[in-house]
Amino acid sequence: MMAWMNAEAFAETRATGRAVYYSRSRGKLWRKGEESGHTQDVLAILVDCDGDTILLKVKQHGDAACHTGHRSCFFRQLSDTGPINVGVKVFDPQAVYKQPHP
Amino acid sequence: MMAWMNAEAFAETRATGRAVYYSRSRGKLWRKGEESGHTQDVLAILVDCDGDTILLKVKQHGDAACHTGHRSCFFRQLSDTGPINVGVKVFDPQAVYKQPHP
Repeated sequence: MMAWMNAEAFAETRATGRAVYYSRSRGKLWRKGEESGHTQDVLAILVDCDGDTILLKVKQHGDAACHTGHRSCFFRQLSDTGPINVGVKVFDPQAVYKQPHP
Repeated sequence: MMAWMNAEAFAETRATGRAVYYSRSRGKLWRKGEESGHTQDVLAILVDCDGDTILLKVKQHGDAACHTGHRSCFFRQLSDTGPINVGVKVFDPQAVYKQPHP
């Protein structure tokens, strides 16, 4: 998955050892798993060469990082005839989320 | 590595099978490897759930994606005492690039 952090999200991630992002659409911290229970325990924080991107290694509770129920958000592969679903679906989002996600 | 694409970079990546990004600092297409020769052959293009992020699976020529000579740009791990270099250095950037990179 890819998500954004602001300084507060980064500080809380480091302090708690749980992944916290910043939702630009909602304009507030997004404590990953706050609704689904599928939290992420941070195993390592890696910083890239120019220091503006972070890679988290996590233990993903619920075995799926994506709100669609797929293990990875990158579950569609482009082909000449359009996207092909190559992902592993772990859960039914309707059973996990009370409200539908976009 | 993480980089940006614009529509032109994406179209050229699909058409040529080589990774092309958009350099926001230089304001132009960045054909990965144009200076170092370390091009990336695109093996797969994956799109995320909300369709605004792309994950490329590539064959990395030169065995290093990072201009510092590390295999990965994410070669520093944060620790309580500061960043630790955990990366694999594949080449000497001074030998590969004529001009120093930031």
